[in-house]
Amino acid sequence: MTNELVYRGAVELAALLRSREVSAVEVLEAHLEQIDRLNPLVNAVVTMDEDGARAAAAEADRRLAAGVPTGPLHGLPISFKDTAQTAGMRTTFGHPRHADFVPGTNDLHVQRILDAGAIRVGKTNVPEYAAGSHTFNRLFGATRNPYDPSKSAGGSSGGAAAALASGFQPIADGSDMGGSLRNPASFCNVVGLRPTPGMVPNTDGGNVFFPLGVAGPMGRTAEDAALLFSAMRGATPDDPFSFFPAEETHAGEPSPQDFAGLRIAYAPTLGGRIPVAREVLDVLDPQAKVLAELGAHVELDCPDLDGSEEVFRVLRAASFHAAWGDDLDADPGLFNHFLAGNIRDGAKLSGRDVFRAEEGMTRLIRKAAEFFTRYDLVIAPASQLAPFDADLEYPTQIEGQQLENYLDWMRAPYLFTPLGLPALSVPAGFTPSGLPVGLQMIGARGSDVRLLRLASAFEQLSSCSAVHPQGAAVL
Amino acid sequence: MTNELVYRGAVELAALLRSREVSAVEVLEAHLEQIDRLNPLVNAVVTMDEDGARAAAAEADRRLAAGVPTGPLHGLPISFKDTAQTAGMRTTFGHPRHADFVPGTNDLHVQRILDAGAIRVGKTNVPEYAAGSHTFNRLFGATRNPYDPSKSAGGSSGGAAAALASGFQPIADGSDMGGSLRNPASFCNVVGLRPTPGMVPNTDGGNVFFPLGVAGPMGRTAEDAALLFSAMRGATPDDPFSFFPAEETHAGEPSPQDFAGLRIAYAPTLGGRIPVAREVLDVLDPQAKVLAELGAHVELDCPDLDGSEEVFRVLRAASFHAAWGDDLDADPGLFNHFLAGNIRDGAKLSGRDVFRAEEGMTRLIRKAAEFFTRYDLVIAPASQLAPFDADLEYPTQIEGQQLENYLDWMRAPYLFTPLGLPALSVPAGFTPSGLPVGLQMIGARGSDVRLLRLASAFEQLSSCSAVHPQGAAVL
Repeated sequence: MTNELVYRGAVELAALLRSREVSAVEVLEAHLEQIDRLNPLVNAVVTMDEDGARAAAAEADRRLAAGVPTGPLHGLPISFKDTAQTAGMRTTFGHPRHADFVPGTNDLHVQRILDAGAIRVGKTNVPEYAAGSHTFNRLFGATRNPYDPSKSAGGSSGGAAAALASGFQPIADGSDMGGSLRNPASFCNVVGLRPTPGMVPNTDGGNVFFPLGVAGPMGRTAEDAALLFSAMRGATPDDPFSFFPAEETHAGEPSPQDFAGLRIAYAPTLGGRIPVAREVLDVLDPQAKVLAELGAHVELDCPDLDGSEEVFRVLRAASFHAAWGDDLDADPGLFNHFLAGNIRDGAKLSGRDVFRAEEGMTRLIRKAAEFFTRYDLVIAPASQLAPFDADLEYPTQIEGQQLENYLDWMRAPYLFTPLGLPALSVPAGFTPSGLPVGLQMIGARGSDVRLLRLASAFEQLSSCSAVHPQGAAVL
Repeated sequence: MTNELVYRGAVELAALLRSREVSAVEVLEAHLEQIDRLNPLVNAVVTMDEDGARAAAAEADRRLAAGVPTGPLHGLPISFKDTAQTAGMRTTFGHPRHADFVPGTNDLHVQRILDAGAIRVGKTNVPEYAAGSHTFNRLFGATRNPYDPSKSAGGSSGGAAAALASGFQPIADGSDMGGSLRNPASFCNVVGLRPTPGMVPNTDGGNVFFPLGVAGPMGRTAEDAALLFSAMRGATPDDPFSFFPAEETHAGEPSPQDFAGLRIAYAPTLGGRIPVAREVLDVLDPQAKVLAELGAHVELDCPDLDGSEEVFRVLRAASFHAAWGDDLDADPGLFNHFLAGNIRDGAKLSGRDVFRAEEGMTRLIRKAAEFFTRYDLVIAPASQLAPFDADLEYPTQIEGQQLENYLDWMRAPYLFTPLGLPALSVPAGFTPSGLPVGLQMIGARGSDVRLLRLASAFEQLSSCSAVHPQGAAVL
């Protein structure tokens, strides 16, 4: 039987912990029991330190009782994405060669989350080096969808999304280059925010000028993701692009009335650029209509995405080749065939190719800034299709259109990546067979908090929000 | 005879203009007369629109008289660097193929300066496409040093620096990749600030991720450069990296007491990395001693510059090849031999080379941030030697060390470029033969205003500051 604590919202749970209505130990035990019971079905958590977590929870309770000031995440259990380095805890990046790698230090966002009082439980599953949006690797196999374990949980933060939906943890960190926070959120009926690059500093990577990969928060609700975001964000001298002007805050609780008067561009197929499954559009089209009925000015429109495909693929391949080109040369069988192919693509690039891609991204950022003088919000599919068979490497067609490689079905999120904007996926409904569909919401650069607030308002409208407290239907 | 208005400080002149003690027309005429008399000797201004300037000055006077609010640069005449696009005024970039190019729009910083009330007079000379720190090109020839017209004025903002020192204008814009604001300031006994990248937005270039080139202010004093900087700086959505946290401001007038307790790293040879002319060190060493006597903790130390040489040359060549590779392929004789060589260097670069250079720069930025937790300020030579013969393409040796190409003597400024810090040159004294020597001051990222304030305080110490009002000694 499910302990009702494991589907409490993070904000609510944090309040209960702070007021000592529940203890950190109690909260942890409920989540450990849930993991114990259900993780064999979904394979979301791949490394655990139950003893360490119990000690940390007991210590948290002691400190609170002793009147030591607590952080905003006090007592909330979390397993971290297995591409994030965790001091003293195995970090595999989803690759067999790191099966026994134990980092000496925490990545910055991990440290911040722990400093805010969260209790470290373990690690969540990822594709090999987080490449791709379907979570499987040679070490741990595939993560399965809590709404239908025969389906993919998405990726690359697939373990994180499945863990949230399964009640294993109330908050989860993820990262996103081509949709890795948005796609698994869509597949698992949770919220994942790809922040404006720099909001969560880029200190784990060695190239602060590489603008595609970012870390970000996930939660079962936008409110919970916002709580985690508040602990993850903030400038550091190690990332010179991590300084942002303070965002204007809005008073009061989020409400559907927040949409009244809002200028919204609805881009169901990104201006005809991508095929989208009919069953996905059948969920999103009515939601767009609901927003219009609330007084939003909803128009069919899409930011300029010309060249975005090329920019994304060139910069991604360049970064892969810089990271792993030598390793691939030394051992051609080291990486899975997707990753190896992308690394080889990177080997063909000239300095000018990279420079031109940066110029292309510059153009897209400027066009996007102009677009957001005319609109307040863009809405679009978070994924081009509903969760697919977990045993597939990738889906090979959408609505009759053949897909040529493992990136092709990820365009709905990744074509927005080079625009440098905050983007999230929020639950929008279900297909006739009960699979989750996420709505992608994209805001102006730096408006991350406002975007999360609008997602909270949207949750009050969408019929699926009521599903959250029960969590994954089939489990 | 020199009209005394042309050596007034910009701040002082702006106050006289605002209070209508002098008119914009009067100020302009004094400067036009000075240009007319002395420009044939120094060749600093290469394009002029006297009628346009007179009309603008008259209009400025009318508006002030009518009570229209004026900007902070109201009535100050300025010629813009000839690499900055000026609407309706010829912009050659120092290359014959643009001899008749008249842009339709102003570059952002030009527009901001004009919006602040400055009066556009003309354009200042540059090397071909601003490549190199000695100002000469096939269209206009060499700019000569106001302190000795047989010597170089430095570059690439050499026309700007010479124009300031010659009393042609009280403020000047420049730009800096490898020292183009700092070296000519040093050669011409004026102040040039290379701002923290992003402070003056990078909107003229097509690649906001390219972090070497920045626009910045020059003046005969730090105070004047600060006035111009206040008009040039400020965020814009077109440069996503142009947002900076507000800098802490210090109350009161700058004073030598500002140095008391300051932790200063003095790097006379950048840690033994570069040869520096004895006559330059003979000026700087005593100034370091003066700062120590004021209570500063001055230590011989230098930020980590490992890899800076490679980072600078790779990213510079990559940007040149991206900009002009196709043009060079089409016409091998199009560019001067320096530029052509650098473009060809860029053609050899792989995507990985560029990525690795960005990683190297990331490392340097992070090490610099750490260095500035231990120091408040770095001081170093702004140039490795005093102004050299204007008829040379470049100096071929320093203190007996042979230099292999036209970039080799520019290391004092350019090795600091990849650290992403604000850096300026402030007059520090003269060689025995009366040639100016600048002190390079480098501050923590984003501390541009504080750095200008310290430069103002330094001017009160250095014996050369008294030279300013008289301007160029020999003219």
